[in-house]
Formats: sequence, structure tokens, C-alpha cells
Amino acid sequence: MDEFAFIDSIKQTKYRHASVIKGIGDDAAVFRENYQDVVTAVDTFVENVHFSRKTMAPFHIGYRVLAANISDMAAMGATPKSYLISIVVPKDWTDEELQEIYQGMNQIAKEYRLDLIGGDTVSGNELVVSVTINGAVEKNKARYRSHVRAGDVLFVTGTLGDSAAGLAVLLREEFSEFTNKDYLLSRHRQPTPRVEFAKGLAEIDRVALNDISDGIASEANELAKASNITIHVEKDKLPKHEALEQFPQEDQLEFLLNGGEDFELVGTVSEENWEKAKEIAKKTKTSITKIGYATDVNTTNGHVFLYTNGEKELLKPSGYTHRN
Amino acid sequence: MDEFAFIDSIKQTKYRHASVIKGIGDDAAVFRENYQDVVTAVDTFVENVHFSRKTMAPFHIGYRVLAANISDMAAMGATPKSYLISIVVPKDWTDEELQEIYQGMNQIAKEYRLDLIGGDTVSGNELVVSVTINGAVEKNKARYRSHVRAGDVLFVTGTLGDSAAGLAVLLREEFSEFTNKDYLLSRHRQPTPRVEFAKGLAEIDRVALNDISDGIASEANELAKASNITIHVEKDKLPKHEALEQFPQEDQLEFLLNGGEDFELVGTVSEENWEKAKEIAKKTKTSITKIGYATDVNTTNGHVFLYTNGEKELLKPSGYTHRN
Repeated sequence: MDEFAFIDSIKQTKYRHASVIKGIGDDAAVFRENYQDVVTAVDTFVENVHFSRKTMAPFHIGYRVLAANISDMAAMGATPKSYLISIVVPKDWTDEELQEIYQGMNQIAKEYRLDLIGGDTVSGNELVVSVTINGAVEKNKARYRSHVRAGDVLFVTGTLGDSAAGLAVLLREEFSEFTNKDYLLSRHRQPTPRVEFAKGLAEIDRVALNDISDGIASEANELAKASNITIHVEKDKLPKHEALEQFPQEDQLEFLLNGGEDFELVGTVSEENWEKAKEIAKKTKTSITKIGYATDVNTTNGHVFLYTNGEKELLKPSGYTHRN
Repeated sequence: MDEFAFIDSIKQTKYRHASVIKGIGDDAAVFRENYQDVVTAVDTFVENVHFSRKTMAPFHIGYRVLAANISDMAAMGATPKSYLISIVVPKDWTDEELQEIYQGMNQIAKEYRLDLIGGDTVSGNELVVSVTINGAVEKNKARYRSHVRAGDVLFVTGTLGDSAAGLAVLLREEFSEFTNKDYLLSRHRQPTPRVEFAKGLAEIDRVALNDISDGIASEANELAKASNITIHVEKDKLPKHEALEQFPQEDQLEFLLNGGEDFELVGTVSEENWEKAKEIAKKTKTSITKIGYATDVNTTNGHVFLYTNGEKELLKPSGYTHRN
């Protein structure tokens, strides 16, 4: 299929947002946000680096690529609205597989009301899917990593490590007969960005937010560094799905702390706003757990500490990173 | 170099546009266009498909990738403002080469006042550079391919085929001793998107525009198709740099009609606005040439005709496309 046929096949006939003035079909797309700030991010996924056809069907690849981008919008408190796809397609990928990637994106785009407004499809030797997402947020209301303050409650949404556990089930023979496989696989392949909860937080004036793409250890360190503050995490409070219990202790800990791509949110609010945050979580059907707090101590600012039965250790940002 | 070190090394300390609220450093970038429409496009370049290290230094690769995106903004009548880079880096590319790609982008970003606001750097087996650009245009003033009307003057900026001729000099032994090599190579490696001219056209109410990335044959056909109109091109009027004269006639014609990546503009204005368009070209130091006109004939709409000494033939959109 040539580029034009591919673009025609995925072109939306109707856009979900009135802000889209011109979608696919010219040199560029045009959209309008009169009263809001535009939030934008790009994420790139490479076959055999970020995913493998052994563990993900093309549909899941598409779904998860866009999920990662949507999660970036949630982490900014923004409403995701439109996206542009860039795909490098190798010869050994069939048109059907390519279509399935798109169908995966289209599925999550429908769920989160996104419009596909542009793209570029080119040939290459290795599948690369890169998505640029655009969202909107009330003026000056984007949520930054630098907004943590002393005394804040540190929280996460959902449960941690599920995606990494799902991947382990797929890759490691000894886990292949575990129960709750469907749950773990779906968490790995079709994560749920926490957009509604993040938007609900608009009621609260100051919120620091980060999404968990590289594991809580890494993300908490980003918050501590960006806010120049000290963050304290209590290990026993890290929210864990019962499906994780069947893994060896060591793996459980690795999944919980460094398991990437859960696309949950980690953030902080002031102590006084914690009750409100819990109400918003309830209203948006999102589980939320207090896992620690922030302090302002000159000598330790920029660092994260992990507590296990009263024992304190430095938690390094040795999160899940793709090194090849 | 890991992703974070790379991003740190290219991070701007100061943004050129007040519209940038948050650049690199969080889950996403934030910008604001209160009174204008946002224009956005993505372009993806793959080593050995779109460029080769044999014919382009890393600096030129960076320069030209961003030039292509800037040209898309010009084709919309928009002011380019910010961009996001996604790079897939293979092991055999050194950090220095990677830096040079960035320096090439940075060079043209400075020339056109663009801000780098985001990016993603990942590992892979093949170099892929994908750039998403954001620009701004007065509300409802984006220039579309569909705006050609009967009686319009068809024009192009600059000269055609220079980039293709430059590439031929690099690839074909028989042309390697040609004169004007520096000119042709610079047109191939560092094209000049026509942003100032396109912005100047704002004085004119209706303008159809397209940028020449795939050759005039292809782009004129896009205008004819999008506007459902008939376009007539006079071959002898196609603007040609004297450096092209030394190539065989057949090559000259191929370069002129199908030579890609000149990043000149092709467009139409009404007959009565043609003088004004010429003034704007003069003011913005852009050469502009009338190469044909448009008519509305039911049976031929959507097609382009080429005239050579009174002989008429169908000009097919057999433009330069990257097929591998």
C-alpha cells in the first residue's frame, strides 16, 4: 500500500472536536484553542526495543503507543484532543498488520475522544511508530513536576507493577501458568491512562503530577529533582494487585519499584487537599493510595527515600529505561 | 549518550516565542495561541530512504528535515514557531554525529525563529528523524490546496529542479565535474522554505498554496484534485536556474517536473491579484514566475495539462515518491 492509500484508509470522515479546523488532507492540520493552553508531546516506539511481535499483536502496539501519549496528557492535567502518527514500515509487515496497528490506535482514540489529524508513512527496515499528541488545559493550569511542596501527600493511582508482571508472564516460562494472566496481559497491552482523574483534580489549585512510564522509583525522583524537595516513600503502602502475590518476592519488588509502563499517575497535593483528592478519585472511579510525603530538607532535596519496616534507604531513579 | 543527557545538551535556555509556556522538561510542552489558529504537521526521514550519509553530512540531515517541516508551514501561510524531535539512533552513529544533526536543526531554527519544545530519543537499528512542527496563522486564514478557482494565475517561487540536480551531481559520475556545484549542492542540502513570501500573501484574500516536496507535476495535480479544477502548465515558463543547462535535456525535464525537495511554493491567485502577488514577492526578495492558469471544465477537472510549443499533454502526478 502506498502512503496515500494508507492515509486515505485511516482518514476520519468526521472530527470529534470542533477545535479541529482542518484534519488530514493538506500540507498541515489546523486547530484552534481560543481559551486554553495547548499541551503537546511526542513518543516513539521501536520494534524489538519497546515492543516485540512475540508479546504484542499489532492491535496492541497501536493501542499502547497512543496510550503512552494520552498518559502524558493526563500527567499535565490536560484533555487529549488530537494526534499525528508517523510510521516507518518494513517490507515484512503486511498491509493487514499495519491496519491492525491503526485499529488499535483508533480503539483507544474512540475511548478517549481523540481525532487523528495528520501523519506520515514511510518505508524502512525496522518498524517505528511515533505519535505526537495535542491536548488542551485551562490557561496556566498545566500540572508540573516542579509543584511539589513540603508537607505534601504523595499518592499514586491504580496498582503498580502490573504491566511489568504481564510482560514477565509472556517472557518467562516459569510464570506462564500463573493465574490472573488475562488481567496482567491486559494491563501490559492495553493500559488505562488516568485522564478523568487528572482532569477532576482541576478543583485543586496546586497539584504536582507525573505519569508512571519508567517505574515509581524513576518518576518519584523526577518529582524530587524538579521540585528540589525530599520525597519519602513507604514500601508497604505501594498499591499491589493480588495477581502479583504469586511472583517471587524479589520480582514483586522489582515490578513495584521499577516496573515501567503502568501509565498510572504519581503526584502530590497538600495535606489539606488530600480528602478532596480522594473524593475526586471516587467520582472518577479511580483508586488512589497515599504512599508517602514530601519534606524540605536542604541536604537531601532532590532525593527519594524508601522506608521498609522503619528502615530507610536511598531510592535511586534506576527505573526501567530502554537501553540497547 | 543516554536520552536525558542528549535532551539536556540540546535544551534551549531561552525561548524565542512568548507563546511557549513550558518547553522541554516535563511530560509535555505547553504553548498558547489566543488569537491565532495552530497549524501542525509531521515529517519523517529514514536513512537510506530519504537521505544517505554518502550525500549528506549529519548537519545537513538535521537542517533539511526541519526545512521540510518549515516548508509545510509556509504552504499553509503560517508562521513556524516550535518543533518536537523524535530520533531513533543506531549504534553506529556517534554522539558527535548526533550532535551535528541537532546543530543542523538548530541552525535553521535560528534562521526561522523556532523553539525546540520537546522530543524523544530512542535506540534502534536505523536512523529515523521525525519532526513535528507547530505554527500559527490568523484565524481562518490558513491556505488550502482546495482554494484554486477558474481564471487563477498559477505561479511558483524560485527555480525548480535544483535539489534533484544537486543530488544527481553527487550520485552520478558523469556530472561530477559540472560547474555551479556549490549552488546545486546547497539547494539540495539547505533548501530555503518560503515563509516570508507566504506570510506576505496575507494581504490577498484567497490564495491556494502547496509546497514542492515531490515535484511540480505531483503538487499541481494535488491542487487540481483538491480544488476539483483544471490546471494548465506551460513547460517553457517553468523557472530554471542556469546551472541546469549543462545537464542532458531529458534530465533537465525530469528535474523540472518531478524533482523533489525544492521546497519552493506553487500556488494560485486571481488574475486581479497577480500584480499584488508580484509586489509581495519583490518585497520579500523572492522570485516568482507565472507558469500557467486554472480553468473549470467539467470533463477535465482534477487534471493537469502540460503545454510544449502548443502541444498539449496530460501531466500525471508521477512525482518523486520514496518507494523502497
